[in-house]
Amino acid sequence: MLEAAYYAKEMAAFILVGDAEKIRRTAEESQVDISGMEIVNEPDNIKACQAAVSLVATGASEALMKGLVDTSIVMKAVLDKEAGMRTDKILSHLALFAVPTYHKLLFVTDAAINIAPDLAAKKSIIQNAVEAVNNLGISNPKVALLSAKEKADPKMSSSMEAAELTAQHKNGEILGCILDGPLALDNAISKESAKIKGIDSPIAGDADVLVCPNIESGNVLYKSLVFLADAKNGGVVLGAKKPVILTSRADSAESKLISIALGILS
Amino acid sequence: MLEAAYYAKEMAAFILVGDAEKIRRTAEESQVDISGMEIVNEPDNIKACQAAVSLVATGASEALMKGLVDTSIVMKAVLDKEAGMRTDKILSHLALFAVPTYHKLLFVTDAAINIAPDLAAKKSIIQNAVEAVNNLGISNPKVALLSAKEKADPKMSSSMEAAELTAQHKNGEILGCILDGPLALDNAISKESAKIKGIDSPIAGDADVLVCPNIESGNVLYKSLVFLADAKNGGVVLGAKKPVILTSRADSAESKLISIALGILS
Repeated sequence: MLEAAYYAKEMAAFILVGDAEKIRRTAEESQVDISGMEIVNEPDNIKACQAAVSLVATGASEALMKGLVDTSIVMKAVLDKEAGMRTDKILSHLALFAVPTYHKLLFVTDAAINIAPDLAAKKSIIQNAVEAVNNLGISNPKVALLSAKEKADPKMSSSMEAAELTAQHKNGEILGCILDGPLALDNAISKESAKIKGIDSPIAGDADVLVCPNIESGNVLYKSLVFLADAKNGGVVLGAKKPVILTSRADSAESKLISIALGILS
Repeated sequence: MLEAAYYAKEMAAFILVGDAEKIRRTAEESQVDISGMEIVNEPDNIKACQAAVSLVATGASEALMKGLVDTSIVMKAVLDKEAGMRTDKILSHLALFAVPTYHKLLFVTDAAINIAPDLAAKKSIIQNAVEAVNNLGISNPKVALLSAKEKADPKMSSSMEAAELTAQHKNGEILGCILDGPLALDNAISKESAKIKGIDSPIAGDADVLVCPNIESGNVLYKSLVFLADAKNGGVVLGAKKPVILTSRADSAESKLISIALGILS
């Protein structure tokens, strides 16, 4: 995390919250120059997370980033009603991919937090994503609601929910985007595939945001893009007062940088 | 389909069932040489499907292949209890991918037929796939049961079902394979990813067969491999007396050929 912060120092100023002595020792051992970064000394992990959340809640920081501490401790501090970082929105994950075979950036939600979101939760997940993508400067992103079918089918609840959300969008309930579904992934990202299947959608072959019907499909898409389609990726948790950047040790340095950029800009 | 049959003529002899006059005219217009293929004249679509199923049921043919006729008509003929092609097994789809970024062939099930299979259905889907992959000469395929987590979590039913199926495999109820789950896709196909997450599995990074928890995740994986990871693919329906080859007009000629090969060999 220190290394990622060092490489991202042109993008943002970092405040390191934790055991100051340990932080300095880790930086020295890893040969990372943290001389320009502020350190808030708080040796206890739980209190350190609370202190970091407080910095974000009071407006002193623009985003929260997880270091070498359990995700559950960070998220508990974020979700604490007294801490001031929680909002009435649902928390959801937004991933960003640069896929060599696709002509623009591709956002995917929710591959990490909401397991089997119902209709209302899906609407909130979409709204979180659209707001973040709008903040990134994409003013009217094309949002595809994925299912395994292109037509609403009572046997497949994900297709019915996608159709209902599309109806809500048409009624003006979901703003800031062009939205359509149900769509199969190929219709959303390949004009040719949409044409062969006779699908007339404003999104056909040109989606910015892919909304996955459940966490399994989101997770499989995420992993297939990174591990089989050579995508560069980043991710952020939305829905709190400010974005939460949750990188893991398994992420590449590049992936951590993209996540930081996403957290700052979204 | 005629073109695919022409290119596959070294692999198999084709019997064309349908309106003989139309078949000859189509071949002529498409400049496909069908001179070596037998034609069974049956102008009615439904009867043609029944006649083709009968050829397979009686052992005259090794596989059934769909031409320019609705999938529902073909499947109705296959499922007809009187026609002799149906078995007591569940019908399931098996897809085959050659992904440039993976070190061997990758099979995926079920991306096309079973929407939300329960535990018993999943077991049958696995057994169908293992039998077919065994027939292809892979004697002990590594089967990964995918979920969005690597540990069984009561909040995620797909992870619990994967754990239960793994327990059944250990009890000797699912034979002919090495099986493990729940696994996230990256653990199943990347040794490095499995190592970073501390996952000790005989499958880690070396899966042959990926069993998807629901049709949405299967469909998304299928489409992302073909449209974003440059995979070559084929597919077949298993569980009937002989394989059913269902290619669509959207498939490339190469994909149709792979499906034919899969149908003949599995």
